[in-house]
Order: sequence, then C-alpha cells, then structure tokens
Amino acid sequence: MLVGSNKPYSSLPLVSSMFNGRRKVDYVLVFHQRRHNSLRSPASTSVSHDRLSVVSNGNFPPSAGSDLAAGRGGGMPGGEACVGEVFMELGYAGGNESMEPGDHEMRLIRQEFEANLQEAGLEIERDKEVSESGFGSSMSTVWRKLNQPFQPKVPRQDQGRTKFLSHSFSREKLHLYNITSKETFFDNTTRGRIVYEILRRTVCVRTCQTIGISTLIAKGVYDAAFPLHDVSALSAAVLNLQGWARYSAFYKYQPIDLVRKYFGEKIGLYFAWLGVYTQLLIPASIVGIIVFGYGVATVDTNIPSLEMCDESLNFTMCPLCDGACDFWHLSTACGTARASHLFDNPATVFFAIFMSLWAVLFLEHWKRRQISLSFNWGLTGTEDDEEHPRPKYETILLQKRQKKQKNKKKKKKSEAPIDKLTWKDRLPGYFINISSILFMFGLTFSAVFSVIIYRITISALMAMSPDPAIKSNVRVTVSATAVIINLVVILILDEIYGNVAVWLTELEIPKTDTNFEERLILKAFLLKFMNAYAPIFYVAFFKGRFAGRPGNYTYVFNNYRMEECAPGGCLIELCIQLSIIMLGKQLIQNNIFEIGIPKLKKLARAIKNKGSTEKEKEEGKPPQQWNLDYALAAFEGLTPEYMEMIIQFGFVSLFVASFPLAPLFALLNNVIEIRLDAKKFVTELRRPVAIRAKDIGIWYNILSGMGKFSVIINAFVISFTSDFIPRLVYQYMYSPNGTMHGFIDHTLSYFNVSNFKPGTAPHSSAHKDISFCRYKDYREPPWSTDAYQFSKQYWCVLAARLAFVILFQNLVMFLSLVVAWVIPDVPKNIVEQLKREKKLLVDVFLQEEKEKFQLIQSLFSKDNPLQAGSHLLQQAQGIAAPGRSSTLPSGQTQALVGDGGGVPRARCRAASFSQFTRKSPSSPMNENENSRHTAV
Amino acid sequence: MLVGSNKPYSSLPLVSSMFNGRRKVDYVLVFHQRRHNSLRSPASTSVSHDRLSVVSNGNFPPSAGSDLAAGRGGGMPGGEACVGEVFMELGYAGGNESMEPGDHEMRLIRQEFEANLQEAGLEIERDKEVSESGFGSSMSTVWRKLNQPFQPKVPRQDQGRTKFLSHSFSREKLHLYNITSKETFFDNTTRGRIVYEILRRTVCVRTCQTIGISTLIAKGVYDAAFPLHDVSALSAAVLNLQGWARYSAFYKYQPIDLVRKYFGEKIGLYFAWLGVYTQLLIPASIVGIIVFGYGVATVDTNIPSLEMCDESLNFTMCPLCDGACDFWHLSTACGTARASHLFDNPATVFFAIFMSLWAVLFLEHWKRRQISLSFNWGLTGTEDDEEHPRPKYETILLQKRQKKQKNKKKKKKSEAPIDKLTWKDRLPGYFINISSILFMFGLTFSAVFSVIIYRITISALMAMSPDPAIKSNVRVTVSATAVIINLVVILILDEIYGNVAVWLTELEIPKTDTNFEERLILKAFLLKFMNAYAPIFYVAFFKGRFAGRPGNYTYVFNNYRMEECAPGGCLIELCIQLSIIMLGKQLIQNNIFEIGIPKLKKLARAIKNKGSTEKEKEEGKPPQQWNLDYALAAFEGLTPEYMEMIIQFGFVSLFVASFPLAPLFALLNNVIEIRLDAKKFVTELRRPVAIRAKDIGIWYNILSGMGKFSVIINAFVISFTSDFIPRLVYQYMYSPNGTMHGFIDHTLSYFNVSNFKPGTAPHSSAHKDISFCRYKDYREPPWSTDAYQFSKQYWCVLAARLAFVILFQNLVMFLSLVVAWVIPDVPKNIVEQLKREKKLLVDVFLQEEKEKFQLIQSLFSKDNPLQAGSHLLQQAQGIAAPGRSSTLPSGQTQALVGDGGGVPRARCRAASFSQFTRKSPSSPMNENENSRHTAV
Repeated sequence: MLVGSNKPYSSLPLVSSMFNGRRKVDYVLVFHQRRHNSLRSPASTSVSHDRLSVVSNGNFPPSAGSDLAAGRGGGMPGGEACVGEVFMELGYAGGNESMEPGDHEMRLIRQEFEANLQEAGLEIERDKEVSESGFGSSMSTVWRKLNQPFQPKVPRQDQGRTKFLSHSFSREKLHLYNITSKETFFDNTTRGRIVYEILRRTVCVRTCQTIGISTLIAKGVYDAAFPLHDVSALSAAVLNLQGWARYSAFYKYQPIDLVRKYFGEKIGLYFAWLGVYTQLLIPASIVGIIVFGYGVATVDTNIPSLEMCDESLNFTMCPLCDGACDFWHLSTACGTARASHLFDNPATVFFAIFMSLWAVLFLEHWKRRQISLSFNWGLTGTEDDEEHPRPKYETILLQKRQKKQKNKKKKKKSEAPIDKLTWKDRLPGYFINISSILFMFGLTFSAVFSVIIYRITISALMAMSPDPAIKSNVRVTVSATAVIINLVVILILDEIYGNVAVWLTELEIPKTDTNFEERLILKAFLLKFMNAYAPIFYVAFFKGRFAGRPGNYTYVFNNYRMEECAPGGCLIELCIQLSIIMLGKQLIQNNIFEIGIPKLKKLARAIKNKGSTEKEKEEGKPPQQWNLDYALAAFEGLTPEYMEMIIQFGFVSLFVASFPLAPLFALLNNVIEIRLDAKKFVTELRRPVAIRAKDIGIWYNILSGMGKFSVIINAFVISFTSDFIPRLVYQYMYSPNGTMHGFIDHTLSYFNVSNFKPGTAPHSSAHKDISFCRYKDYREPPWSTDAYQFSKQYWCVLAARLAFVILFQNLVMFLSLVVAWVIPDVPKNIVEQLKREKKLLVDVFLQEEKEKFQLIQSLFSKDNPLQAGSHLLQQAQGIAAPGRSSTLPSGQTQALVGDGGGVPRARCRAASFSQFTRKSPSSPMNENENSRHTAV
Repeated sequence: MLVGSNKPYSSLPLVSSMFNGRRKVDYVLVFHQRRHNSLRSPASTSVSHDRLSVVSNGNFPPSAGSDLAAGRGGGMPGGEACVGEVFMELGYAGGNESMEPGDHEMRLIRQEFEANLQEAGLEIERDKEVSESGFGSSMSTVWRKLNQPFQPKVPRQDQGRTKFLSHSFSREKLHLYNITSKETFFDNTTRGRIVYEILRRTVCVRTCQTIGISTLIAKGVYDAAFPLHDVSALSAAVLNLQGWARYSAFYKYQPIDLVRKYFGEKIGLYFAWLGVYTQLLIPASIVGIIVFGYGVATVDTNIPSLEMCDESLNFTMCPLCDGACDFWHLSTACGTARASHLFDNPATVFFAIFMSLWAVLFLEHWKRRQISLSFNWGLTGTEDDEEHPRPKYETILLQKRQKKQKNKKKKKKSEAPIDKLTWKDRLPGYFINISSILFMFGLTFSAVFSVIIYRITISALMAMSPDPAIKSNVRVTVSATAVIINLVVILILDEIYGNVAVWLTELEIPKTDTNFEERLILKAFLLKFMNAYAPIFYVAFFKGRFAGRPGNYTYVFNNYRMEECAPGGCLIELCIQLSIIMLGKQLIQNNIFEIGIPKLKKLARAIKNKGSTEKEKEEGKPPQQWNLDYALAAFEGLTPEYMEMIIQFGFVSLFVASFPLAPLFALLNNVIEIRLDAKKFVTELRRPVAIRAKDIGIWYNILSGMGKFSVIINAFVISFTSDFIPRLVYQYMYSPNGTMHGFIDHTLSYFNVSNFKPGTAPHSSAHKDISFCRYKDYREPPWSTDAYQFSKQYWCVLAARLAFVILFQNLVMFLSLVVAWVIPDVPKNIVEQLKREKKLLVDVFLQEEKEKFQLIQSLFSKDNPLQAGSHLLQQAQGIAAPGRSSTLPSGQTQALVGDGGGVPRARCRAASFSQFTRKSPSSPMNENENSRHTAV
C-alpha cells in the first residue's frame, strides 16, 4: 500500500535530527488504581494515579529508555512530533502485581485497549505516579508571571504574499506536500486531534466489547483523557493568549487566529462570533441609551403621565382587592406612570424596528465574517468529511446484529444485513423524549403558575393584615419576592434541563457526533428558552387580561382574584421582570456557575489530595505538565457557552421594545464574558481537543429563527403591552382638539359601586359618598343599555392594535429582506480569491503532468541513451523534490493568477489527511489537515 | 505556448480519416448586397443575400475547392468537426466588384471583420446566392414526414455504469481528455457556442471601431448570424424532438436531456422548469376542483345565500344610483349571491393555505430537480466563468478613456487609469430609468382609473336612459365592456413595456450579459406585473370601499357616484375579473402573439421573396439548410416565455383564494404551452446559440418573492374581500342561537329616506310608503345618537379580519418554513455522488503522479540504460495514451470509490475549455466544455 509513495518522502532532507532525546506528549490517559497497602476505604480516597502518556510518533525505529527518562526531566519542550504513520511502544506497566478483582478486570481491559492502540500506530509511555500534585492551581500564577505588556499587534503568520493551496493529506500523496520538517508538519492541535480520533475508534472486543476511550472512561477503566496544554506553543501563541485572557484587554480585538491555532477552529469560531456579537452590541447600546434618554427628557412634558399625577383630576379608582382594599386615587400611581413613560414612548417603536434590522444585520455580518475566517483558515475547499458513527451507536448496532443472528438461527430464514438503526429501534427513545419534553414544559408552566398563585395569595393575605406598614408595602414586597423566586426557579431548572437534554439525546442514539450535538442543542435550547421566557411572556401578554372587571372579577380557587397589572401599565412590570431576570441570570451564572463552582471544585480536589501533594513536595519532584493539567476541570463543550449567549440574544431582540437598555446590559456582560471565557479556557480547563468546524452550525439557525420571531413579538409588545396604540387612536379619533389632553379619562371606564357583588365592596372606606369608581378598560358605562360590555372604543383600539401588528411585521420583514439582499453573503474579494485558488490548484497538477511529458520526450529525443539518462536524472530530481520551486506554465495562466496583483508565487498546502495510520482498526481515517507543498 | 502539449495529442490514432469531403457548418452570417443592375428601389426589396458560413475546423492543412463543392451537394451531413485550435480559410469573395458607396464601406468592414475572425482561428466559406428560397416554411412539413411513432423510452446516453469526471478544457491539457474522435469531441451545440463567442469578441478597429457581430448586425453590415439546425443530429435527437414537439405527446414526460443536447442547458432548464411546474399544477387543480365542488354542493344549503334569495324577508335596499334608480329588493340579487358562494366558502380558506404551501413545495421541488439536472449535465463542478463585458459596455468605456486622455493632455495631470464605468457614467441612465418607470406606473394607474371612470359614467348615463331594456342590462353591459377594455389595455401595454424595458436596460450600460439580462427581467417583471395586476388589486381591495353611504356618497367630477361592488359582494367581481384577464391573456397571447404573428411574418417574407424563389426553382437548386433556416424567425431569448409563465404563476398563487379554478386553467394552458413552445423552437425559429446555465437565475428569486407575497395577499382577500370573517363573527358573537340565520339582516344597516340629500332620492319610486331603506355596511341606525357612524359591529368585524390576517400569515409562514426545512435542497444521492466524484478526480491526478515516479524509479533501478529505455518506453506509452485504462491505486482509495457500489471504472470528462483559439483577439477565452479522458 505504501510502496512508491514513501520513496520521495524519505528522500527529503528532514529525516535527520529526528530524535534529540525529548518527545512530545500529545494526549494523556489517566486511570485510578487502588493501593494494596491502603488502610482507608477503597472506594475513593486512597487511589494512586497512573499516568499514561500517549505519544504519536513518526516511522523511525522505536527506541526509548534513556530518551524517556530525559524527556521526563523538564516538562514537554516539544518539537519532536513526527508525521504520517505512527506506532506505539508500551512502557513499563509493572508495580501493581497484586490487586483486587475489579482492578484486575480493569487492568485486562486496559491491556487490550492499549495493545489495540499500539496496533493503530500510537506510542504509549507510562508514568507511574503515587500521588497527584495540587499544583494545578498554581499554573495560572505561573502564567500570570509571564505578564508581559500586551501586544495589540499579534505577530502575523507567514501568509504574507504566499498563498498556500490546501489539499487533503494522505500518506500515499506525501510528495505533494511541502514537508519542511516532520516536527512541524502537523501542528500541536492536529496531533491532538489525530490521537483523539484513534483513541475514540480503538476497539476493545476481547475483554469488554466496547469502542473508544469515552466508553472506557464511562466504565471507570480510565479516569480521564485529554491533550496537554502546550507550554512550548505558549511561548509563541499563549503569551498573546495571556494578553487575550486578561480583563484589562477588554477593549481590544481578540487574536482569533492564535486562538484558533491553539484551541482549534470550533473554539476559534465561538470567540470570533462572541466578538462580532459584542462589537455590534455597541451601536445597539448607544441607540438604546438615546431612546431611553428621550424618555427621560420628555417625561415632564408627557401629557398622559402629567394627567395621571394631576391630583386635581381626582380619578377615584375601584379597589384593588375584595373587601380589604379601599378606593384609591389614581394620582398615587404617579411614580409608576412616570417610570412607564421612560420605556413606553414613541421612540421605543423606532427602536424595535431598529433592533429587528440590527438582528438581520448582525446575522449577515457574521455570515461574511465566518466565510472570511474559514477562507483564511484554509477550510473553504475542504468538504465535510464522512463522520464515523458514535461508539454508542455502533455498540447498539452490534447488539442488534447479534440478536438478529440468534433469531436467524432459530428461524433459518435469510434476511437483509443490518447496517443501520431504523426508527423502530429508536421508537422507545422518541417516546420517552416527547413525553419528557412535554412533562418539562408542564413543569415550567406550573412553576410560572405557582409563582402567580404565590403572588395572588400573598397579596391577598397581606392586604387583609391589619398592620398598615405591611399593607402599604404589599405590591413591592410581593413583586420583589416573586421575581426572585422566578429567578431561582429558572436557574435551578436550567441546570436540570441541561442534564435532562443530554440524557434524552443519548436515548435517541444519534449516529454521528454532529448529529448528537445538533439534537442536544435543539432540545436544550427549547427547554431553556421556555424556562427563561415563560414568566416574561406571561407578564407581557397574559397578566391582567383575565382579571375580569369590577363586579365580575375572575377568581382562582374560588377565593383569590386574578392579578392585574400595576396602575402604570403592564409594560413597566415587564420591564422590571425582564431586567431582573436578565441581570440576575447573567450575574449569577457568570459569578457562581462559571467562576465560583469551578474554584470550589478545584479547592475540594486540592484538599482531597493535600496529603499526597505534601509527600510529593517532600520528594522534591517538579510538577509534571500532566499533573498540572489533570488538576484542571474537564472541558465540557461549547454548548453551555453558546446557550448562555443565545438566551441573552433573546433578551436583546425579543422584548427589546419594552426594555431599550437590554443591549447595554448585554454589552457590559459580554465584555467581561469574553475575557472570562478566555481565562477559563486557558487556565481553568484541561485543553480541549481541537475540533474542525467551518461554521457555528445549528446556532446560526437558532439565531436566525429568534430574529424572525422577535419581529412578531416586538409587534405584539408595542401594540398590546404598551399604550402606544391607544394613545394614537385617542389622538386621531377621539380627542376633541387633537392633543393628548383627556386621554386618561378616556381610558377609564365607570363602575357603579352599587353593582359590587355582596362582600366584595370595601368593608371600610374613606370615600363614603362615592357612587362611581373608575377602572382601566374600555367598557360601556353603567347607564348604557349594555352596561359593562366592551365599548366601541375597545373594538376600535383592538382593530388599531392588530393593524399595527400587520403593518409592523410586514414592514420589518420587508426591510430585513432588503438588508439581507443588499449585503452579499460572501465578501467580493474572497469570491475572487477562491476562483483564483481553484485555478492554481489545477495548474499545479497540470504542471507536473507537463514535466512528465517533457521528461519522456527528452528521453526519446536523445540518440545516446546514457545522455538521456543523465538528463532524465536532472529532470527527475526536479520533480522528486517538491520543496523546490518551478515556474508556472506561463502566459495566460500566469496572467490569471497574478490578476489581482501580488500573488507572484503560489504554494500548495494540503488541507486534509486520510489513511495516516498504518492499519486502521475499524474503518479508514478521514480527517482534515494542513500540510504544504511547494508547487509553483 | 503549445509546445509539448500537442505531442501526445497528435499521437492519438484519430488523426486519420479527417477529411472525407464534407464539412460541418457551425454558424451562418448573412448580409445584404444590392444588385447593381437593379431597377427597383435600392432600400429594401432588391437585395441579394450572400451567405457566409463560418466553419470551425481542426489543425490540419486548409484544403478546400472540390471539398467545398462536394459539401454543398447534399445538405450538411456533418461529422468532420475538429477540436482544439481552429483556423480560418476565406472563400471566394468575388462577383461584386461594382457597388454603391454605402455598400463599399460595408464591404470593407466585412473584410476586416472576417480577417480578424480568420486570425481568431475560424474557417470561413462563402456561399454566393442570388435569391432566397421560400422553402423555410416547407421544412416543418418535411419534418412532419419523419413522423415515426413516438418512443416514450428515449435512448439513454452512455452514462450507464461509467461516470465521467468533468474538467475545464484547455488546449494545453489535451492529453487529459478522452478524445476518441475529433469529430465528436465537441458536440454540435458546443461548436456553435465557441464560434458565437469568437464572433462576439472579434474586433473591427480599422474600419468601424466596434466589437462583435451584434454591433455589426445593428449597423446593417450583416443581416443575421445564427447557427444551423442540425439535420444530421436530428436523426438522433430531433426525431425525438419531433415526438416532443407534438401536441399528441402532451401527457408524456419531456426528453429533457435531448432538448438540452440540442438547444443547450439554458433552454433545457426552461423546459424542465415548465415541466415541473405543469406537473405540480395537477394536484393543485384537483384540490381546486374539489374546493369548487364543495361550493357547488353546499350552495343549496347555505343559509346566507338562501336568506338573500328569500323573497319573504323583503329587504328594501337603497337605490344604486342617484335620482334615476329606484329602491330594490335584495332577493333580485339572488343569482350573484349563489354564484358568490361557489367561490366564497370555508373550503376556500383551506385552499388558500394549501396553495401557499404548494408554492413552497413547488420551489423546493424545483431546487432539487435543478441540482439533479446540473449534476447529470456535468455542471456541478464548474464555476461560473468570468464573463466578458458586453461590447456596448466596452465601446463606451473606450470612449470614456479617449475623452479622458484628451482631457489629460490639456490638464497635464496624471490620474488613475479608467478600467470601469462608475455610477457617474450611469447617472443619466438611472435618472431616465427611474423617471420612465414612474411614468409607466402612472400610465398603468391612469389606465385603470380611466376604466373606472368609464364604468361610472356609462352606468350613470345608461341608468338615466328612458329605455327599460338598456336600464335592465346596465351592470352586465358595463362590466363586460370594461373588462374587455382592461384586457386590451393590458395586452397593448404589455408589448410596449417589454420594449421599453429593453431600451431602459441598455441605458444603464450593464457590464455583462448576465447583468443585462437580470436588470431587464427585473424591470420587465415589475412593469408587466403592475400592468396585469393593477385592475385586479383595485377590485380586490379598493372597489366599493370609497363609495360612501346613502346620504353621503363620494362623488367624482362632482357628478358621478363612486362605484360599489355587486350586491353579491366584491369577491364574485374579483373572480370574474381574474378569470377573464387570465384566460383572455393566455388565449390571446398564445394564439395571436405566439402562433398568429409569426405565421403572418413568415407569410409576408414568403410573398416578398416570391419572385426570387420561383427563379431559384427554375434553376433547379435544392434548398440549402442555411436558406431554410434564414427563412425562420430569429430567436429572441427566453425572457418572454418565462415572463408569461411567471405572470400566470401570479394568477395561480396570488389570488387563488378567490378563484380556486385558476390552477386548472393554468394546467390546461401549460399542457398546450409546452408543446407549442417545443414546436416553435424546433420549426419556427432559427436555432438559438446554446447557452450554458446552472439554474434559472433571477426567475427563481421572482418566483420565491411572489410565493411570499401571495401569503399576505391571500390573507387579505379572505379576510377583507370575502365574507368569511363577518360570517364567523356573526355566528359566534351576535347570532342569537349560534346559527347563520339572520346574518343578512345583521349585515344591512338602516337608512332614513328623509335623509337623502336633495335631488339624490329616487325621482319616481314604486315604493312610495317606505321610510327606511337598507344598505350593506355596519353603521349605526338613524335613530341612534351618532347616526350613520361606524357601529360597534364594524370595529369588531374589522378587528376579527385583522386578527385573521395575522393568524393566517404567521401560520402559513411557519408551515412554509417547516416544509422548506423538511425537504433538503440537494438530494441525498447527489451529495454522495458529488463527494465520490471529487475524490476520484484527485485520485486521477495522483495516479498519474505515481506512474511518473514509477517510471523514474524503473529507470534508475536498472543497470543497463538501454533496458531502462525500453522499459521506460512501455511505461511512457502507458501514460501517453489516455484512452487506455489503468487500475486505481487500490486499497483504501478503491474502497472509497466503490463505496456506493457499482462504479467499477471511473472516467474523467473535462467540463470547460479555455484558450482554444490560437490568438485571442482581446482577452482569453473562458468557456465551459465537456470532453473526455479515460483516467482509471
């Protein structure tokens, strides 16, 4: 298989200086092993960690011993990475001859698994340690010492005028790549990915019938598996990462290319996305502040709120609760009316339109940025590789096959071979899924409802209290506690739903990891979105709409009146609810979940291992990189990070009409969030396996869906929650002089106090002589023929509200279409470059073609075969050394290449590798990688 | 430039049998030349046509004479097409020594242009003819004789198990292609395209300073330029085209692959699109018929129409015109009420939702079909080539440069070179554009308004007529004449707008042809859409809404009352308007514009040339193919064909809620349309130049935009034009017993006849004792405090209508999103095949690489250089003959290739050509072409 293709490779000058006594650790496997002489409980405390470092290496003869010893001396300075086929060497496993039965089994599994890894071409080194170092936490302090002044100008990668062509890597095609050094051909991230892929795919049939490291970790055979933070790469990149991961750099652009180089494309894209989002929040915040400022500036000239505060108008309102409450004057609600105007003014309508267009603009901008990034990172040409099925999927498929075979023997009937799971196999999973999701929807709704009941009952009870101090604070106390309860419920359910979503997705047995992730995200998003927004939707669209009217209130549990909105309108309540949930969620999740809990965990681990650490210290060993990294928390995927931001995006887009300061709060949060995440990734988490990704995947669809949804939500908030439409209708249809004077009077209906149901009238009233009280609704007065029915004004305002929704929605949708149409998805320069690059790639191949024919030609044109031979030799060398440059076919082709000016030389860079293992254990490896080939 | 690459090519065995005495005519140029001895007016009648057939040929020495003579004997059997570089040979030009000054100039231009064509590599043959044959029309009869029984199973192309890889054709890369025969390497369509491209790009600097044949035709230097219908290809393909172009084949699938082969991808896509559209109209028609059937079935049990027909209810309606008209009984409008129910019933709402989803489904389905087709036609891999600017653009650019240079000399100031036209150059064009479009919008609106005025005035005048016969037929007469006037105006403006759009687009100076086409289509669509739909929109949403109420009517010109809808409601009027315009437009455009006018033109030509034809007949010459083709009409692009269908799609989607039979009428029309168009393309038009296209371009966007627009329009039609919502509101809010009984009474308001303005009450009335008349509106009765104001019901119904619009729009949009999301854009099997193909292409190149290294290896491994030479020779032959097969690299690669099963051998097919001319006159040629290369 490798015949022929290896030849040119070994003729490269890089075979020398292969081994200088140190090796690079690409991946670490950790397992626990009970000590025999332990006196403490064998369950958890008395374990010794046996590190197993898996080294991927090149095709030179296995030699170890002293090298290993030397390599263990001083960290992992790296540089000896080798390319292409890799093989394995099992270190000394000894020292644990006598162990307990469970342990023995584990050991057998490990032995088989590691043997299979070896077969797959990995090198394995064993680092027997007695204890775990607690120095992990000190790593960040070490790094903080590298606190050099931040360089905003990140050193550019050598892309200058040379453009690398990309192509899939394959061992058979080695001569095509510009391999200057085996050490640097695959970079650190790629090596980690290769090893991870092997670990994930290596089977373990004899001892435990599973596939891949993840199952073994789940079974407890291994404790952890992770690649190492790369201290040597740190000198180049992470110094900048240090700058990047500092709060003080909050105002600077992120060094995305370096982030991508160190953490891989997927994480790079996350930070790029976060950066774009945060950046675009700046204009939104500014406009939001202006809109809010407009509200502040006009609050003293706003006629409706002036009328509400005007005591001379003397509107006597119907009591807010049955019996215990008295009639009250509208002017006492002056404060909320003024506050309401801050958020409920004509500028808000403009802001809602603005923010809908902003969301479209953001998505379009991100689309362009994403394509730019994937072009700069050499991902444009590469196809998505065929993904391997998840180990769990294969395990279940295997089980199904075995079951079928048994049945077959019984029935003696030939059937089609089973090569995939059908919906029948997944039916139970789907069933549990749907019922669980429905159950959790129910849970969310009942949580919301419980809080409503809490509010209703507590208000009623407190109103009945004889203490006037309690009575006066009813609304504030109840609202405050209710919102806090809401927040706590949201936070708790959020955590629960996250875990339930994972469990449910596992039940669905998705085929590939991408598949798994997409399903998980969709489910988690659905649940968390419902959870976070259900109380807000309630306040925005339902609160107060089912309260009934004086004399005919709606009661829950036969006793308690349904709650109404505050006299200032529902919008101010929505605004309060929104700001508390948004701020609370962000602050608590940022502080407690993202900083506090990891710190606590670390502390717990440190305390647990204190004894052993001290022992180690006594032994005077310097901490190994793998010890430091093991002390860090495991990386658990980007889903929670994205989820947090997407939910925030909802606050910024969905209800922005009621809370123009949302973008500002989001901006403030995100400025911190970027650096917090950066810090976490660099210092708090084990290094994640670099994953290749061209885009942010399903998150984009979710964002775009929310953008669309936000249009209709904002339309409804403006027309139904705010008083914008009633004011307009009054001004243009009912106002006697075209001004807003008399608006408050117009919105209040009359109620004849003699119509109170028995027992619901105020028990004791300061207003004895009153015959009519007022309430906020459009209903016929008591003296009308159809008293208390909805009045003509009600239907008129309703029609106006609905017309506004139609107008707003279609206008914004049309504008969004125009914006999306005006901004092209792919930047023009990238379109051009892609075209040029494609041409170049073909020309590279054709040039080689041409040389071949010239070679043959020259052979037959010479009479003297010896002469021909020497000529041939020269030419052959010219071809065989891909590192050398040759000229382009010239003429028109060159013109095409040089067209944009400034690509005088083109180089070919491979962009994916396949078949790099000598023998692939289950199916051929197909992953993408960059390598180089001087072509022109 | 060609060194080296030609060698392997000439070693192919296909150089023999190159010339067997006949040549293939790829393109025909026609010019007029006045006869010197003519006595008639020199302007138009007395012209002789000099045919100039341009033959593109291979790189063998030019030899003509006898061959040409032989070739002229029996049509153009073709088969001697040659590939790669082409050169030209100028035939005898003699015989026209003495001509008039204008002619002389023309001749000089022709000489230069043809010399440049020769330089570009074309062969030119001159066919001096005295007259034109009138036999063109007899061609169709000749073809009809080939009327073999239709074979529904079109012979498959040899794609069976062999998949061709596609790649751009380039003369430098000849060895890569599977050139089995120079004759068939480029097919007929491609040859036409190549020659057209050269013709289009050849400059003519010395004599006339223009670029390309189109300018020369415009200047009158040439009369026409077209490729020939290919009688020899007809035997293979057009026999089937004959089957395709017959009306009797209306129920059969179209042989799209053959259509594409003969007419090129663009026309192939048009017919494929038309086929998909027609096919999907079948289910829509069936559902439409069912919905209509539901209306017919329920008309006798429908309570509102029964109530309207019930004479015992005795509603006395207010008069329909001032003075002359009397009060009338509602039961006299029974007929329209019943007819109205046929189209205005609950099933219509379902049908509107169904058709909105149908539109989405149609677009998704077409997307998939388009991708399948472009995959099958080998277009997926090919990029859109850089298009050359239009000659007109370059001419204007040249003028600008020259002007600038003059200015430069004056100012002596260095400026940036001009390489494109800026918006400043186009400003006058844009200005004229906008003002013209606005003017034409105004024209359309005033046409609509004129018809309204016509209706109002004629009705009023006829109502005043003393003749009772005239009086009774007022409505029918006026409506019928008005709709016909509308239709005529639409048809006339349609033709005018088509031409104006072309003129306006030329003013914009678009850079490329694609650009030109897109702008033209957008403009023409906008104008024609407005034109066709303005009267329909008026009836649907405006008619009757500004009529006022009894006692307070709206008047135009102070005299005439604004028109109201018929008593049965506006929907029935909309329905009539829609069906007449739709049917009338289709029938008249199909019959007159597409069949009648071309026939008349042909007849006119035949009569004009009668004399010369007879002369020719006397000479006994058989008609040449170019004579026959010249007699046909010129091909004028697909835009009118598409436009007709898109406007029809509007009738099917936009107002489908009011006319469920629209899909049926569209289906009936299209079944004929397909065959009509087919017939036209095959027998009535000169062969169009084959144009490559991957998709239907901007038409898709227009379709998709109309689909979106149709949702909101249908929502409004249902809620505002139909009585669906008022009925619902009555049933659930006002009906005393929950049935529809009393609905008619509820919709009619009261009017006190004493409130008529002076002179507007009926002059003579049969109803003397009446005090109240009724009118259809929701207004307060005269005895109310605010008499004749909109009642509460009005606002309630309005709110319900608006709520329905919101509900309908969002529901349908959501369902559309779901449908679009469920149906993947690219069929799964094509995704897989594309991946496999991409891998194969890379492997092909790598295999060649490998062979090269093996070659070198074998050379140096042998001690004896002579032996090495012979071995090398063998290997070299193996490489140099691309027609031979070699095995795959084996192993894993094979596994990947054979993965889908059944691709045992892969062949490479080139998919675009570049640099095929020896010397490109202005810029390198870049066009796509298919050719073959045996790779594996």
